[in-house]
Amino acid sequence: MLDLAFRPDRASSEPLHRQLEGYLRGLIRAGRLAPGEKLPATRELAASLGLGRNTVAQAYESLCDAGLLAAHVGQGTFVAARGPRAAAPSGSVGGFAWDGLLASRTRWLQWPPGAAVPKEIRFDFRPGGVDADSAPQLELRRAYSRALARHGRALAAHRDPLGWPPLREAVARALVARGIEASPDQVLITSGAQQALDLIGRCLIDPGDAVALEQPGYFSAALAFASSGAHLLGIPVDGRGLRTDVLARLLRTRRIKLVYTTPAAQCPTGVVLDDARREELLALAAENQTPIVEDDYDSELRVGAAPMPALKTRDPDGRVLYAGTFSKATLPGMRVGYLVAPRPLLQRMVLARLASDFGTNAVAQAAIVEMLASGDLERHVRRVRKLYAARLRALDAALREALPGDARWQIPAAGSALWLRLPREADPDRVWRGLLDAGVAAVRGDVFHVDGAGRDHLHLGVANLDEVGLAEGAALLGRVVKRAARKRRAA
Amino acid sequence: MLDLAFRPDRASSEPLHRQLEGYLRGLIRAGRLAPGEKLPATRELAASLGLGRNTVAQAYESLCDAGLLAAHVGQGTFVAARGPRAAAPSGSVGGFAWDGLLASRTRWLQWPPGAAVPKEIRFDFRPGGVDADSAPQLELRRAYSRALARHGRALAAHRDPLGWPPLREAVARALVARGIEASPDQVLITSGAQQALDLIGRCLIDPGDAVALEQPGYFSAALAFASSGAHLLGIPVDGRGLRTDVLARLLRTRRIKLVYTTPAAQCPTGVVLDDARREELLALAAENQTPIVEDDYDSELRVGAAPMPALKTRDPDGRVLYAGTFSKATLPGMRVGYLVAPRPLLQRMVLARLASDFGTNAVAQAAIVEMLASGDLERHVRRVRKLYAARLRALDAALREALPGDARWQIPAAGSALWLRLPREADPDRVWRGLLDAGVAAVRGDVFHVDGAGRDHLHLGVANLDEVGLAEGAALLGRVVKRAARKRRAA
Repeated sequence: MLDLAFRPDRASSEPLHRQLEGYLRGLIRAGRLAPGEKLPATRELAASLGLGRNTVAQAYESLCDAGLLAAHVGQGTFVAARGPRAAAPSGSVGGFAWDGLLASRTRWLQWPPGAAVPKEIRFDFRPGGVDADSAPQLELRRAYSRALARHGRALAAHRDPLGWPPLREAVARALVARGIEASPDQVLITSGAQQALDLIGRCLIDPGDAVALEQPGYFSAALAFASSGAHLLGIPVDGRGLRTDVLARLLRTRRIKLVYTTPAAQCPTGVVLDDARREELLALAAENQTPIVEDDYDSELRVGAAPMPALKTRDPDGRVLYAGTFSKATLPGMRVGYLVAPRPLLQRMVLARLASDFGTNAVAQAAIVEMLASGDLERHVRRVRKLYAARLRALDAALREALPGDARWQIPAAGSALWLRLPREADPDRVWRGLLDAGVAAVRGDVFHVDGAGRDHLHLGVANLDEVGLAEGAALLGRVVKRAARKRRAA
Repeated sequence: MLDLAFRPDRASSEPLHRQLEGYLRGLIRAGRLAPGEKLPATRELAASLGLGRNTVAQAYESLCDAGLLAAHVGQGTFVAARGPRAAAPSGSVGGFAWDGLLASRTRWLQWPPGAAVPKEIRFDFRPGGVDADSAPQLELRRAYSRALARHGRALAAHRDPLGWPPLREAVARALVARGIEASPDQVLITSGAQQALDLIGRCLIDPGDAVALEQPGYFSAALAFASSGAHLLGIPVDGRGLRTDVLARLLRTRRIKLVYTTPAAQCPTGVVLDDARREELLALAAENQTPIVEDDYDSELRVGAAPMPALKTRDPDGRVLYAGTFSKATLPGMRVGYLVAPRPLLQRMVLARLASDFGTNAVAQAAIVEMLASGDLERHVRRVRKLYAARLRALDAALREALPGDARWQIPAAGSALWLRLPREADPDRVWRGLLDAGVAAVRGDVFHVDGAGRDHLHLGVANLDEVGLAEGAALLGRVVKRAARKRRAA
């Protein structure tokens, strides 16, 4: 049954049926309730949420009237196959009702409110970026210049949709050092790891197919699979990583097309998937013909000890699709990543790739080969790894000073962001509004959940702030949190 | 009704029902008969092809046995919703049956045989490339170096999924010169024009939606829309371009989601869509809420007179989605293009873009801004425009020498390739085999058709051959054609 994170606010002046209606509308618009999905019977849902049956019925009816749900006599209530055809006024231009022309599978894609940004940013804790002052500007200039001087003619003739052959070879060599054996023809160069996820979705997901993802988990992976029509199933994460026991239980009753995971440093919690769970996950994949997508996006930015070898190192038969990226090690805007996959799948992906964009910018691929060959890339990664680790420790110290009560966080195994649970006494919505008002940019936890949960968490990145900025930003965050806690106690 | 280009070869030793079966299998595999599509009744098809009804029934039965068609009693015969689940041996790796895991919408994507390439290429007439010796190597080095020196920090922080703002502004300015009024926030930078087509498909096409394309027409556009599950409808082309009368007739009886066209120099015929048809096309779009995709891919490479203004210049209300590219003016591997579209659609595309790859390589975008600002790009385009025009004239002269009989071609309005109809006395399949054996690489006409027609045409590009190569290649082509003609007469 649908596990709803809806919590009625009985103190609110908004009637309960409207609260539930708004909550469900959000899930549908975000694609988290997929078209065609059946909703629980009003009686069941009312019981599980502690609401009156009439409250649930009223919410369902309003959503049916809006065209978002459809009731079929004797069968139940379902998410409507398409949104309402009438164009919203904003969607019409010169007589064309664009909203009504949108395809179903992208109609519901939407950024959740937890991705909102203050009008004026004073402290930019947004994760996912790199420190702009440390950008390897000179190294990139040298690499681009060399690449064009050496390969200008070959780059002009380049047609291989798998990618620039010297980069595929360099990736295969670099992976050997990490324990992964792959030949260059098992490597597909992609426009960032994101495109690897998108191509996997295009080639493996039929609308309605279930994809299991970590909860909390990487929202852009959810976006990629949702845009292929996947039904997203959240698998909880604890201190040992993805709960493979929950996955195993699910697999007993339903087909899951693929499992997406970030084992080196789980996004966003930063925990490492432990050894026993890795074995269990690989066994589940083999038993159920369910490929694993291993997104190794930040593993080179380890904070402490050397990372555990990739899942892919224990995968002689190709059930792990391994995605990596050079964007974090250069500039996010480089959009150069790679996918290691078995050949039958890669052959199919080449066609999907030709359909989508023919290939990744060739000059950037050749420049990265130069940066790998000169050692510039490794030196740069070593430099920023130290930088981010120091900043994470500084943020950790500042949060200890700034935050009251039972706030919880830990330094991640790798990367450049912290996952913070707010103190329980602080009202999460007040904290969020306070942060937006104060000019503190971060990402709220609901962005990392498929069911709207996680509003009491923040993901705080350290790439855009130096240690002074981190300390000041953390202090401001602390003040906002304390204010929200006081108000809650007062209320 | 399905318009089949099947021509039974009564001289062949292969039984007619096998010939028909093979032809239909090809259409299904190529996605040209979409899953769920209804086939004509055996009686109808037999009558229209001049075959016995039993012949058609035998072909249908074999395809049902193979799982490619499904017969529903009282309803007719349909293309099966999915291919057979059994994995081909080639698709299995280490116990994973990858063929069985593939998604329906990419399962059928396939390059047609007319895209085959000789083992050893002696004369490379393949279209779509650029002259490697003329690649603007120095200009690109200068542009990359300047872009990184000036904008290294901003490039590291760049996050706008619409694209690098200075490039969006530069595109908007460049389009004003072509008569198109667009503000920078109506411009989406894409990874080549191909990605513009793919994003249009993602945002507008539901599986089964009809997309009308020129026939012959650009195969990669067909691939992009097919990969979103579009049902492709071919609209014939004559000396005045797309047959808008045929489109109008179709629109009377069925909904068409969008129309794809290359009005400046139709791909592959090179004809210009004339004035009256432009007006008619725009009127049909408005009447039917059917957006037009105008792919203006080669218009800067005009051969003779200045090109007619884009369709988009007559489009005050945004019914034309205008796609252009910088790849042809720099390197195909640059993968930088753009789409001009109304804002409601662009907002949706931004989400589809985040799902697919976050954005186009930022350094390449900034480098193109530098090449535009310095005038290097315009100078380079002027240079290669002259080069390709001269080569097209040289190929034209060489073909006049080399080809017998009633072969037909004309110099295109723009671009770097010729569309050639082989002489009627030459057997197209013999010509094709002869070319592959002789090391002549070109693209056969069936690649440009959704129904397998066009095998008697070749698309010949001039970017990879100098005038000597073109003359020698054309002479060899002439010998192959004459041999095929002699054999046909002898047979």
